[in-house]
Amino acid sequence: MSDITAALAANAREVDATLDRLLPLHNDTDTRLLEAIRYSTLSGGKRIRPFLVLSGANLFGVSREFALRAAAAVEMVHCYSLIHDDLPAMDNDTLRRGMPTNHIKFDEATAILAGDGLLTRAFEVLADPATHSDPRVRANLVVELARASGVDGMVGGQMLDLLAEHRTLSMAEVTRMQRMKTGALIAFSCDAGAILGKGGDSARHSLRAYAHDLGLAFQIVDDLLDVEGDTETVGKMTGKDSNAGKATFVSLLGVERARAQSAMLARQAVEHLAIFDAAADPLRALANYIVARRI
Amino acid sequence: MSDITAALAANAREVDATLDRLLPLHNDTDTRLLEAIRYSTLSGGKRIRPFLVLSGANLFGVSREFALRAAAAVEMVHCYSLIHDDLPAMDNDTLRRGMPTNHIKFDEATAILAGDGLLTRAFEVLADPATHSDPRVRANLVVELARASGVDGMVGGQMLDLLAEHRTLSMAEVTRMQRMKTGALIAFSCDAGAILGKGGDSARHSLRAYAHDLGLAFQIVDDLLDVEGDTETVGKMTGKDSNAGKATFVSLLGVERARAQSAMLARQAVEHLAIFDAAADPLRALANYIVARRI
Repeated sequence: MSDITAALAANAREVDATLDRLLPLHNDTDTRLLEAIRYSTLSGGKRIRPFLVLSGANLFGVSREFALRAAAAVEMVHCYSLIHDDLPAMDNDTLRRGMPTNHIKFDEATAILAGDGLLTRAFEVLADPATHSDPRVRANLVVELARASGVDGMVGGQMLDLLAEHRTLSMAEVTRMQRMKTGALIAFSCDAGAILGKGGDSARHSLRAYAHDLGLAFQIVDDLLDVEGDTETVGKMTGKDSNAGKATFVSLLGVERARAQSAMLARQAVEHLAIFDAAADPLRALANYIVARRI
Repeated sequence: MSDITAALAANAREVDATLDRLLPLHNDTDTRLLEAIRYSTLSGGKRIRPFLVLSGANLFGVSREFALRAAAAVEMVHCYSLIHDDLPAMDNDTLRRGMPTNHIKFDEATAILAGDGLLTRAFEVLADPATHSDPRVRANLVVELARASGVDGMVGGQMLDLLAEHRTLSMAEVTRMQRMKTGALIAFSCDAGAILGKGGDSARHSLRAYAHDLGLAFQIVDDLLDVEGDTETVGKMTGKDSNAGKATFVSLLGVERARAQSAMLARQAVEHLAIFDAAADPLRALANYIVARRI
């Protein structure tokens, strides 16, 4: 196992333990709803966004407890978006991380409410005094996460993605759609560490530039896996976008140029980290891992 | 027009102007999504929750601008919950405030995303420095709104309501379900003014007790209107709960006792306001209005 794979796995264990603690089964509400939330949040996953939060936070000496709570909140938002995106009215997916999607395992109403509950809990966790001693930091985290995941970010990007089923997007439009749909939350993940650690403008700027290139590289590889991967390995339905005739980085660039573009973006992402010392090595390793991954 | 009706209308105009400002149509994202959000948020409504926020804030001398932003955030959460609750997988309603529900006017995917976007925006608005100069107050508003609207509040209550289609709830269960589904957000609405104005414990306690009784009275009248009102006047489908055989306060108590119970709760709500002077008169008037309303 390479260093980065081991680091991802170690971080994922800590993040999973934090999520388990923050999303307890309890008797104050219906168990089915909590089970649905835990089903989609504690079902594995590489926890790449939490890894970004934790690695970013390390650059600024943030306490592990604060960073883990912020990392868990980002993952809650990511998981809520997967639950809602998989719904029949949206992407109508039945398989996620090798398991039935939430509305298949439970039902549509439960899946909608589980997503709503997760999103709400993410903001509650960020604003809670346990996430940072300075309330200004907590309020700032809420504002930035909301911007990244709202109509000008993830939610707006998913809307553009749905509309793309009816017309073919240009390269510029696909880039914008992906920047909103997946890039904005990845950028927030990197930013969260700097917000928690009160990083300076130049550090925040470098991290955001890194996140921007990393996010695009990540999405291009996702598109490549949709074409080249098989369902069993990737753990979700593949060939969906290409079969639906949707414009992706791969359909627009071709496989070879798409792979070259993702590698170029990963190198560029690493270059943005030049102002940081060896403490940023996990972020550098992640960029290389992202483009080499096969799942 | 009675004083309270005029006061509700005047507040609603201010709240609508604030919502219009906080939910602008702009070019950064897809127009259809923003139109769907505005369709369900700027379509009228009595704005009872914002009235509670504004009236509560008045007790503590909170600036109107702060109070209006908090009031708008609460209304966004209320409107998001209506959009999601109306979905085919949930209550499958086609009519709301006399107009087609969001998924009928647009489509299911847009309605899900419009709800997600509204909920997200509510937290962004609360955490924004424009909502209060003290970040501790902003973070506290986020935590309390999240608690009121999450799995132990509104979302959990809606889940219990859906499960009630499959079995008959007892009086205690219906009370608990409604306290979560509608009571928690009404309680937060009253609490928000105290949080903004840094009200003392006894003031907050009195307001929450008022909100608790008001919320139950409100729900009992809703159940009465479902039985007694006609669709044209009420502006949404009536007779749904009774036709579905769902346990409601009316099915459990009967019309007469339900009406008497709502009147008793309204009187009790007003009694909880005894520690406040004439500044609380709008809250007193609202309690009487709630049980007398016909829509």
